[in-house]
Amino acid sequence: MPDKHLSSQFDADLSLLSTRLLEMGGLVESQIVHAMEALNTFDVDLIERVLEGERRLNVMEMEIDEEISNVIARRQPAARDLRLLMAASKCVTNLERAGDEARKIVKRTQRIAKDANAPKVNIAEIKVSAEMASNVLHRALDAFARMDTTAAEQIIRDDEAIDNEFRAFVRKLVTYMMEDPRTISPGLDYLFIAKAIERIGDHATNIAESVVYVIKGTNVRHVPREQLELDALRS
Amino acid sequence: MPDKHLSSQFDADLSLLSTRLLEMGGLVESQIVHAMEALNTFDVDLIERVLEGERRLNVMEMEIDEEISNVIARRQPAARDLRLLMAASKCVTNLERAGDEARKIVKRTQRIAKDANAPKVNIAEIKVSAEMASNVLHRALDAFARMDTTAAEQIIRDDEAIDNEFRAFVRKLVTYMMEDPRTISPGLDYLFIAKAIERIGDHATNIAESVVYVIKGTNVRHVPREQLELDALRS
Repeated sequence: MPDKHLSSQFDADLSLLSTRLLEMGGLVESQIVHAMEALNTFDVDLIERVLEGERRLNVMEMEIDEEISNVIARRQPAARDLRLLMAASKCVTNLERAGDEARKIVKRTQRIAKDANAPKVNIAEIKVSAEMASNVLHRALDAFARMDTTAAEQIIRDDEAIDNEFRAFVRKLVTYMMEDPRTISPGLDYLFIAKAIERIGDHATNIAESVVYVIKGTNVRHVPREQLELDALRS
Repeated sequence: MPDKHLSSQFDADLSLLSTRLLEMGGLVESQIVHAMEALNTFDVDLIERVLEGERRLNVMEMEIDEEISNVIARRQPAARDLRLLMAASKCVTNLERAGDEARKIVKRTQRIAKDANAPKVNIAEIKVSAEMASNVLHRALDAFARMDTTAAEQIIRDDEAIDNEFRAFVRKLVTYMMEDPRTISPGLDYLFIAKAIERIGDHATNIAESVVYVIKGTNVRHVPREQLELDALRS
Protein backbone atom coordinates (compact mmCIF):
# COMPACT_ATOMS: atom_id res chain seq x y z
CA MET A 1 0.00 0.00 0.00
CA PRO A 2 1.30 3.47 -0.77
CA ASP A 3 2.44 5.62 2.09
CA LYS A 4 -0.56 7.71 3.11
CA HIS A 5 1.50 10.81 3.76
CA LEU A 6 3.41 10.60 0.49
CA SER A 7 0.23 9.84 -1.39
CA SER A 8 -1.56 12.92 -0.07
CA GLN A 9 1.45 15.07 -0.98
CA PHE A 10 1.26 13.61 -4.45
CA ASP A 11 -2.45 14.44 -4.59
CA ALA A 12 -1.63 18.01 -3.59
CA ASP A 13 0.96 18.17 -6.41
CA LEU A 14 -1.60 16.88 -8.90
CA SER A 15 -4.23 19.29 -7.74
CA LEU A 16 -1.81 22.20 -8.18
CA LEU A 17 -0.88 21.00 -11.68
CA SER A 18 -4.51 20.61 -12.55
CA THR A 19 -5.20 24.21 -11.49
CA ARG A 20 -2.30 25.43 -13.62
CA LEU A 21 -3.55 23.46 -16.64
CA LEU A 22 -7.06 24.87 -16.29
CA GLU A 23 -5.60 28.34 -15.93
CA MET A 24 -3.60 27.89 -19.13
CA GLY A 25 -6.72 26.49 -20.83
CA GLY A 26 -8.66 29.56 -19.73
CA LEU A 27 -6.09 31.79 -21.38
CA VAL A 28 -6.27 29.78 -24.61
CA GLU A 29 -10.06 30.11 -24.60
CA SER A 30 -9.89 33.86 -24.22
CA GLN A 31 -7.28 33.95 -27.00
CA ILE A 32 -9.80 32.25 -29.29
CA VAL A 33 -12.56 34.71 -28.33
CA HIS A 34 -10.27 37.70 -28.90
CA ALA A 35 -8.96 36.34 -32.20
CA MET A 36 -12.52 35.90 -33.51
CA GLU A 37 -13.46 39.35 -32.30
CA ALA A 38 -10.38 40.73 -34.09
CA LEU A 39 -11.48 38.98 -37.30
CA ASN A 40 -14.84 40.66 -36.93
CA THR A 41 -13.64 44.17 -36.12
CA PHE A 42 -10.00 44.25 -37.38
CA ASP A 43 -9.25 46.01 -34.08
CA VAL A 44 -5.48 46.56 -33.94
CA ASP A 45 -5.32 46.59 -30.13
CA LEU A 46 -7.12 43.27 -29.97
CA ILE A 47 -4.66 41.74 -32.43
CA GLU A 48 -1.77 43.00 -30.29
CA ARG A 49 -3.45 41.56 -27.21
CA VAL A 50 -3.61 38.10 -28.80
CA LEU A 51 0.07 38.28 -29.79
CA GLU A 52 0.92 39.27 -26.23
CA GLY A 53 -1.23 36.44 -24.81
CA GLU A 54 0.61 33.95 -26.98
CA ARG A 55 3.91 34.94 -25.40
CA ARG A 56 2.39 34.35 -21.95
CA LEU A 57 1.23 30.91 -23.07
CA ASN A 58 4.78 30.06 -24.14
CA VAL A 59 6.07 30.93 -20.69
CA MET A 60 3.28 28.93 -19.04
CA GLU A 61 4.15 25.88 -21.16
CA MET A 62 7.74 25.94 -19.95
CA GLU A 63 6.76 26.51 -16.33
CA ILE A 64 4.14 23.76 -16.16
CA ASP A 65 6.44 21.28 -17.92
CA GLU A 66 9.09 22.12 -15.36
CA GLU A 67 6.62 21.49 -12.54
CA ILE A 68 5.65 18.14 -14.05
CA SER A 69 9.32 17.10 -14.21
CA ASN A 70 9.76 18.16 -10.60
CA VAL A 71 6.77 16.10 -9.45
CA ILE A 72 8.05 13.02 -11.30
CA ALA A 73 11.55 13.45 -9.87
CA ARG A 74 10.24 14.03 -6.34
CA ARG A 75 7.44 11.46 -6.11
CA GLN A 76 8.76 8.80 -8.49
CA PRO A 77 5.30 7.64 -9.48
CA ALA A 78 4.68 4.41 -11.38
CA ALA A 79 1.99 2.95 -13.61
CA ARG A 80 -1.13 5.10 -13.87
CA ASP A 81 0.25 8.05 -11.90
CA LEU A 82 3.23 8.25 -14.23
CA ARG A 83 1.01 7.91 -17.29
CA LEU A 84 -1.07 10.77 -15.90
CA LEU A 85 1.93 13.07 -15.54
CA MET A 86 3.28 12.23 -18.98
CA ALA A 87 -0.18 12.84 -20.42
CA ALA A 88 -0.30 16.19 -18.58
CA SER A 89 2.93 17.16 -20.31
CA LYS A 90 1.46 16.33 -23.73
CA CYS A 91 -1.65 18.22 -22.69
CA VAL A 92 0.43 21.34 -22.06
CA THR A 93 1.94 21.01 -25.53
CA ASN A 94 -1.53 20.74 -27.05
CA LEU A 95 -2.62 23.89 -25.22
CA GLU A 96 0.42 25.78 -26.39
CA ARG A 97 -0.20 24.65 -29.98
CA ALA A 98 -3.87 25.68 -29.73
CA GLY A 99 -2.53 29.07 -28.66
CA ASP A 100 -0.28 29.10 -31.75
CA GLU A 101 -3.41 28.65 -33.87
CA ALA A 102 -5.03 31.71 -32.26
CA ARG A 103 -1.88 33.63 -33.17
CA LYS A 104 -2.14 32.39 -36.77
CA ILE A 105 -5.74 33.63 -36.90
CA VAL A 106 -4.75 37.19 -35.99
CA LYS A 107 -1.77 37.10 -38.35
CA ARG A 108 -4.11 36.17 -41.23
CA THR A 109 -6.56 38.81 -39.97
CA GLN A 110 -3.83 41.43 -40.31
CA ARG A 111 -3.30 40.39 -43.95
CA ILE A 112 -7.04 40.50 -44.71
CA ALA A 113 -7.30 43.94 -43.11
CA LYS A 114 -4.62 45.26 -45.48
CA ASP A 115 -6.08 43.71 -48.64
CA ALA A 116 -8.40 46.02 -50.58
CA ASN A 117 -9.78 43.04 -52.57
CA ALA A 118 -10.72 41.09 -49.47
CA PRO A 119 -14.23 39.74 -50.00
CA LYS A 120 -16.91 40.55 -47.48
CA VAL A 121 -17.12 36.96 -46.34
CA ASN A 122 -19.93 36.02 -44.01
CA ILE A 123 -17.95 34.34 -41.26
CA ALA A 124 -20.95 32.66 -39.64
CA GLU A 125 -19.52 29.13 -40.02
CA ILE A 126 -16.10 30.25 -38.73
CA LYS A 127 -17.75 31.78 -35.69
CA VAL A 128 -19.77 28.64 -35.04
CA SER A 129 -16.70 26.43 -35.34
CA ALA A 130 -14.65 28.74 -33.12
CA GLU A 131 -17.30 28.54 -30.42
CA MET A 132 -17.45 24.78 -30.77
CA ALA A 133 -13.66 24.51 -30.66
CA SER A 134 -13.46 26.68 -27.56
CA ASN A 135 -16.22 24.62 -25.98
CA VAL A 136 -14.60 21.24 -26.66
CA LEU A 137 -11.26 22.57 -25.43
CA HIS A 138 -12.87 23.65 -22.17
CA ARG A 139 -14.65 20.32 -21.77
CA ALA A 140 -11.51 18.37 -22.67
CA LEU A 141 -9.50 20.08 -19.94
CA ASP A 142 -12.33 19.59 -17.50
CA ALA A 143 -12.45 15.89 -18.39
CA PHE A 144 -8.67 15.75 -17.95
CA ALA A 145 -8.83 17.39 -14.52
CA ARG A 146 -11.54 14.96 -13.39
CA MET A 147 -10.18 12.02 -15.42
CA ASP A 148 -13.68 11.51 -16.77
CA THR A 149 -13.51 9.01 -19.63
CA THR A 150 -17.22 9.22 -20.48
CA ALA A 151 -16.96 12.97 -21.05
CA ALA A 152 -13.69 12.45 -22.95
CA GLU A 153 -15.22 9.92 -25.31
CA GLN A 154 -18.12 12.28 -26.02
CA ILE A 155 -15.64 15.05 -26.93
CA ILE A 156 -13.88 12.77 -29.39
CA ARG A 157 -17.21 12.13 -31.11
CA ASP A 158 -18.15 15.84 -31.06
CA ASP A 159 -15.01 16.86 -32.94
CA GLU A 160 -16.72 15.54 -36.08
CA ALA A 161 -19.16 18.50 -35.92
CA ILE A 162 -16.27 20.98 -36.07
CA ASP A 163 -14.82 19.18 -39.07
CA ASN A 164 -18.23 19.40 -40.77
CA GLU A 165 -18.43 23.16 -40.21
CA PHE A 166 -14.95 23.47 -41.67
CA ARG A 167 -15.96 21.58 -44.80
CA ALA A 168 -19.12 23.67 -45.16
CA PHE A 169 -17.08 26.86 -44.95
CA VAL A 170 -14.58 25.62 -47.54
CA ARG A 171 -17.44 24.89 -49.95
CA LYS A 172 -18.78 28.41 -49.44
CA LEU A 173 -15.35 29.94 -49.98
CA VAL A 174 -14.93 28.03 -53.23
CA THR A 175 -18.21 29.54 -54.46
CA TYR A 176 -17.05 33.06 -53.57
CA MET A 177 -13.74 32.49 -55.30
CA MET A 178 -15.31 31.12 -58.46
CA GLU A 179 -17.68 34.09 -58.70
CA ASP A 180 -14.92 36.64 -58.33
CA PRO A 181 -11.35 35.39 -58.86
CA ARG A 182 -9.95 38.57 -57.29
CA THR A 183 -11.11 37.16 -53.97
CA ILE A 184 -8.97 34.01 -54.31
CA SER A 185 -5.93 35.32 -52.49
CA PRO A 186 -7.74 36.82 -49.47
CA GLY A 187 -10.07 33.80 -49.60
CA LEU A 188 -7.08 31.60 -48.80
CA ASP A 189 -6.46 33.71 -45.68
CA TYR A 190 -10.00 32.90 -44.56
CA LEU A 191 -9.38 29.28 -45.45
CA PHE A 192 -6.33 29.11 -43.20
CA ILE A 193 -8.27 30.78 -40.40
CA ALA A 194 -10.94 28.08 -40.67
CA LYS A 195 -8.17 25.48 -40.73
CA ALA A 196 -6.62 26.97 -37.57
CA ILE A 197 -9.95 26.56 -35.77
CA GLU A 198 -10.29 22.99 -36.96
CA ARG A 199 -6.79 22.39 -35.52
CA ILE A 200 -7.83 23.79 -32.15
CA GLY A 201 -10.58 21.17 -32.16
CA ASP A 202 -7.95 18.54 -32.96
CA HIS A 203 -5.86 19.64 -29.98
CA ALA A 204 -8.93 19.35 -27.75
CA THR A 205 -9.49 15.87 -29.12
CA ASN A 206 -5.87 14.95 -28.37
CA ILE A 207 -6.38 16.02 -24.75
CA ALA A 208 -9.60 14.01 -24.52
CA GLU A 209 -7.84 10.97 -25.99
CA SER A 210 -5.13 11.21 -23.37
CA VAL A 211 -7.76 10.92 -20.61
CA VAL A 212 -8.87 7.59 -22.04
CA TYR A 213 -5.22 6.55 -22.36
CA VAL A 214 -4.43 7.35 -18.72
CA ILE A 215 -7.46 5.53 -17.36
CA LYS A 216 -7.75 2.57 -19.70
CA GLY A 217 -4.11 2.31 -20.74
CA THR A 218 -5.21 2.07 -24.38
CA ASN A 219 -4.58 4.73 -26.92
CA VAL A 220 -8.01 5.73 -28.17
CA ARG A 221 -6.45 7.76 -31.01
CA HIS A 222 -6.33 4.63 -32.97
CA VAL A 223 -9.67 3.08 -32.11
CA PRO A 224 -12.12 3.71 -34.94
CA ARG A 225 -14.88 6.19 -34.09
CA GLU A 226 -17.54 3.52 -34.78
CA GLN A 227 -16.02 1.35 -32.07
CA LEU A 228 -16.28 4.21 -29.59
CA GLU A 229 -19.93 4.59 -30.50
CA LEU A 230 -20.55 0.90 -29.96
CA ASP A 231 -18.78 1.08 -26.62
CA ALA A 232 -20.97 4.04 -25.65
CA LEU A 233 -24.12 2.09 -26.48
CA ARG A 234 -22.95 -0.85 -24.43
CA SER A 235 -21.92 1.08 -21.33
CA MET B 1 27.93 9.76 -7.71
CA PRO B 2 25.51 7.57 -9.61
CA ASP B 3 25.82 3.83 -9.29
CA LYS B 4 28.01 2.69 -12.21
CA HIS B 5 26.03 -0.46 -12.79
CA LEU B 6 22.65 1.31 -12.73
CA SER B 7 24.00 4.04 -14.96
CA SER B 8 25.17 1.65 -17.66
CA GLN B 9 21.78 -0.11 -17.55
CA PHE B 10 20.19 3.29 -18.04
CA ASP B 11 22.49 3.94 -20.99
CA ALA B 12 21.42 0.62 -22.50
CA ASP B 13 17.77 1.62 -22.07
CA LEU B 14 18.43 4.95 -23.76
CA SER B 15 20.29 3.34 -26.60
CA LEU B 16 17.39 0.94 -27.21
CA LEU B 17 14.90 3.82 -27.16
CA SER B 18 17.07 5.77 -29.53
CA THR B 19 17.11 2.85 -31.98
CA ARG B 20 13.33 2.57 -31.79
CA LEU B 21 12.92 6.31 -32.43
CA LEU B 22 15.23 6.19 -35.45
CA GLU B 23 13.34 3.14 -36.74
CA MET B 24 10.03 5.01 -36.40
CA GLY B 25 11.60 8.04 -38.10
CA GLY B 26 12.76 5.82 -40.96
CA LEU B 27 9.20 4.64 -41.48
CA VAL B 28 7.91 8.23 -41.49
CA GLU B 29 10.53 9.16 -44.09
CA SER B 30 9.49 6.31 -46.37
CA GLN B 31 5.85 7.34 -45.86
CA ILE B 32 6.72 10.80 -47.19
CA VAL B 33 8.55 9.33 -50.20
CA HIS B 34 5.65 7.00 -50.99
CA ALA B 35 3.05 9.74 -50.54
CA MET B 36 4.91 11.99 -52.98
CA GLU B 37 5.29 9.13 -55.44
CA ALA B 38 1.55 8.48 -55.13
CA LEU B 39 0.84 12.14 -55.89
CA ASN B 40 2.97 11.78 -59.00
CA THR B 41 1.53 8.50 -60.28
CA PHE B 42 -1.87 8.18 -58.53
CA ASP B 43 -0.88 4.56 -57.94
CA VAL B 44 -3.64 2.94 -55.88
CA ASP B 45 -1.36 0.31 -54.33
CA LEU B 46 1.04 2.98 -53.16
CA ILE B 47 -1.81 4.92 -51.53
CA GLU B 48 -2.92 1.76 -49.74
CA ARG B 49 0.66 1.18 -48.63
CA VAL B 50 0.84 4.62 -47.01
CA LEU B 51 -2.47 4.05 -45.21
CA GLU B 52 -1.14 0.72 -43.96
CA GLY B 53 2.15 2.32 -42.87
CA GLU B 54 0.23 4.92 -40.88
CA ARG B 55 -1.42 2.16 -38.84
CA ARG B 56 2.01 0.71 -38.07
CA LEU B 57 3.19 4.14 -36.92
CA ASN B 58 0.24 4.35 -34.54
CA VAL B 59 1.22 1.06 -32.96
CA MET B 60 4.86 2.15 -32.74
CA GLU B 61 3.85 5.35 -30.97
CA MET B 62 2.04 3.41 -28.26
CA GLU B 63 4.84 0.89 -27.86
CA ILE B 64 7.65 3.45 -27.59
CA ASP B 65 5.65 5.59 -25.17
CA GLU B 66 5.11 2.49 -23.05
CA GLU B 67 8.86 1.77 -23.10
CA ILE B 68 9.62 5.35 -22.05
CA SER B 69 7.23 5.03 -19.10
CA ASN B 70 8.87 1.78 -18.12
CA VAL B 71 12.34 3.29 -18.18
CA ILE B 72 11.21 6.23 -16.02
CA ALA B 73 9.49 3.91 -13.53
CA ARG B 74 12.47 1.54 -13.39
CA ARG B 75 15.39 3.98 -13.34
CA GLN B 76 13.79 6.96 -11.62
CA PRO B 77 15.98 9.47 -13.43
CA ALA B 78 16.22 13.11 -12.39
CA ALA B 79 17.17 16.42 -13.98
CA ARG B 80 18.56 16.10 -17.49
CA ASP B 81 17.91 12.36 -17.84
CA LEU B 82 14.27 12.88 -16.99
CA ARG B 83 14.03 15.84 -19.34
CA LEU B 84 15.51 13.62 -22.04
CA LEU B 85 12.88 10.91 -21.56
CA MET B 86 10.02 13.38 -21.49
CA ALA B 87 11.39 14.98 -24.63
CA ALA B 88 11.61 11.52 -26.24
CA SER B 89 7.93 11.05 -25.54
CA LYS B 90 7.07 14.35 -27.23
CA CYS B 91 9.37 13.33 -30.06
CA VAL B 92 7.32 10.17 -30.60
CA THR B 93 4.15 12.27 -30.76
CA ASN B 94 5.76 14.52 -33.37
CA LEU B 95 6.73 11.51 -35.46
CA GLU B 96 3.24 10.10 -35.27
CA ARG B 97 1.77 13.46 -36.29
CA ALA B 98 4.23 13.70 -39.19
CA GLY B 99 2.90 10.28 -40.21
CA ASP B 100 -0.65 11.67 -40.02
CA GLU B 101 0.39 14.34 -42.51
CA ALA B 102 1.62 11.69 -44.97
CA ARG B 103 -1.80 10.06 -44.62
CA LYS B 104 -3.50 13.39 -45.35
CA ILE B 105 -1.38 13.73 -48.50
CA VAL B 106 -2.60 10.42 -49.93
CA LYS B 107 -6.20 11.16 -48.89
CA ARG B 108 -6.04 14.44 -50.86
CA THR B 109 -4.31 12.56 -53.70
CA GLN B 110 -7.28 10.19 -53.86
CA ARG B 111 -9.61 13.17 -54.24
CA ILE B 112 -7.46 14.75 -56.96
CA ALA B 113 -7.33 11.43 -58.83
CA LYS B 114 -11.15 11.32 -58.93
CA ASP B 115 -11.60 14.93 -60.05
CA ALA B 116 -11.91 15.41 -63.82
CA ASN B 117 -11.25 19.17 -63.45
CA ALA B 118 -8.02 18.66 -61.54
CA PRO B 119 -5.42 21.00 -63.03
CA LYS B 120 -2.18 19.58 -64.30
CA VAL B 121 -0.20 21.28 -61.58
CA ASN B 122 3.56 21.23 -61.81
CA ILE B 123 4.39 19.92 -58.37
CA ALA B 124 8.07 20.88 -58.51
CA GLU B 125 7.89 23.06 -55.39
CA ILE B 126 5.91 20.42 -53.49
CA LYS B 127 8.54 17.83 -54.38
CA VAL B 128 11.34 20.13 -53.29
CA SER B 129 9.64 20.89 -49.98
CA ALA B 130 8.85 17.21 -49.37
CA GLU B 131 12.51 16.34 -49.87
CA MET B 132 13.56 19.15 -47.57
CA ALA B 133 10.99 18.12 -44.94
CA SER B 134 12.14 14.51 -45.09
CA ASN B 135 15.73 15.67 -44.83
CA VAL B 136 15.18 17.91 -41.79
CA LEU B 137 13.16 15.17 -40.10
CA HIS B 138 16.04 12.74 -40.58
CA ARG B 139 18.58 15.26 -39.31
CA ALA B 140 16.37 16.22 -36.36
CA LEU B 141 16.14 12.63 -35.20
CA ASP B 142 19.84 12.18 -35.71
CA ALA B 143 20.50 15.31 -33.64
CA PHE B 144 18.13 13.96 -30.99
CA ALA B 145 19.90 10.59 -30.87
CA ARG B 146 23.28 12.30 -30.50
CA MET B 147 21.93 15.22 -28.43
CA ASP B 148 23.73 17.53 -30.83
CA THR B 149 22.56 21.10 -30.15
CA THR B 150 24.61 22.66 -32.96
CA ALA B 151 22.91 20.44 -35.54
CA ALA B 152 19.55 21.07 -33.87
CA GLU B 153 19.93 24.83 -34.05
CA GLN B 154 20.84 24.61 -37.74
CA ILE B 155 17.65 22.59 -38.39
CA ILE B 156 15.53 25.25 -36.71
CA ARG B 157 17.03 27.84 -39.05
CA ASP B 158 16.58 25.58 -42.12
CA ASP B 159 12.85 25.22 -41.54
CA GLU B 160 12.50 28.74 -42.95
CA ALA B 161 13.42 27.38 -46.41
CA ILE B 162 10.51 24.92 -46.32
CA ASP B 163 8.14 27.71 -45.36
CA ASN B 164 9.45 29.76 -48.31
CA GLU B 165 8.79 26.89 -50.75
CA PHE B 166 5.30 26.60 -49.33
CA ARG B 167 4.61 30.28 -49.90
CA ALA B 168 6.02 30.09 -53.46
CA PHE B 169 3.72 27.16 -54.23
CA VAL B 170 0.68 28.99 -52.82
CA ARG B 171 1.44 31.97 -55.06
CA LYS B 172 1.65 29.66 -58.07
CA LEU B 173 -1.62 27.95 -57.16
CA VAL B 174 -3.39 31.31 -56.87
CA THR B 175 -2.28 32.11 -60.43
CA TYR B 176 -3.62 28.77 -61.72
CA MET B 177 -6.90 29.31 -59.92
CA MET B 178 -7.34 32.84 -61.24
CA GLU B 179 -6.69 31.73 -64.81
CA ASP B 180 -9.22 28.92 -64.64
CA PRO B 181 -11.72 29.04 -61.76
CA ARG B 182 -12.73 25.40 -62.39
CA THR B 183 -9.37 24.49 -60.89
CA ILE B 184 -10.15 26.19 -57.55
CA SER B 185 -11.58 23.16 -55.83
CA PRO B 186 -8.84 20.66 -56.81
CA GLY B 187 -6.33 23.49 -56.29
CA LEU B 188 -7.28 23.50 -52.63
CA ASP B 189 -6.42 19.80 -52.44
CA TYR B 190 -2.94 20.68 -53.68
CA LEU B 191 -2.83 23.53 -51.21
CA PHE B 192 -3.54 21.20 -48.29
CA ILE B 193 -0.90 18.78 -49.54
CA ALA B 194 1.65 21.60 -49.52
CA LYS B 195 0.44 22.55 -46.05
CA ALA B 196 0.87 18.95 -44.85
CA ILE B 197 4.49 19.02 -45.97
CA GLU B 198 5.08 22.34 -44.24
CA ARG B 199 3.68 20.71 -41.08
CA ILE B 200 6.12 17.82 -41.36
CA GLY B 201 8.87 20.44 -41.35
CA ASP B 202 7.30 21.94 -38.23
CA HIS B 203 7.35 18.56 -36.49
CA ALA B 204 11.03 18.18 -37.37
CA THR B 205 11.63 21.64 -35.91
CA ASN B 206 9.80 20.65 -32.73
CA ILE B 207 12.11 17.65 -32.37
CA ALA B 208 15.18 19.82 -32.94
CA GLU B 209 13.92 22.32 -30.38
CA SER B 210 13.56 19.57 -27.82
CA VAL B 211 17.27 18.72 -28.19
CA VAL B 212 18.18 22.26 -27.20
CA TYR B 213 15.70 22.06 -24.33
CA VAL B 214 17.18 18.84 -22.97
CA ILE B 215 20.74 20.09 -23.12
CA LYS B 216 20.37 23.73 -22.22
CA GLY B 217 17.21 23.50 -20.16
CA THR B 218 15.76 26.43 -22.09
CA ASN B 219 12.91 26.15 -24.47
CA VAL B 220 14.25 27.35 -27.81
CA ARG B 221 10.72 27.40 -29.28
CA HIS B 222 10.33 30.80 -27.86
CA VAL B 223 13.71 32.29 -28.61
CA PRO B 224 13.48 34.52 -31.69
CA ARG B 225 15.24 33.12 -34.77
CA GLU B 226 17.52 36.21 -34.91
CA GLN B 227 18.78 35.38 -31.44
CA LEU B 228 19.66 31.86 -32.57
CA GLU B 229 21.58 33.33 -35.47
CA LEU B 230 23.48 35.63 -33.13
CA ASP B 231 24.26 32.70 -30.86
CA ALA B 232 25.53 30.75 -33.86
CA LEU B 233 27.84 33.59 -34.84
CA ARG B 234 29.20 33.81 -31.32
CA SER B 235 29.84 30.10 -30.81
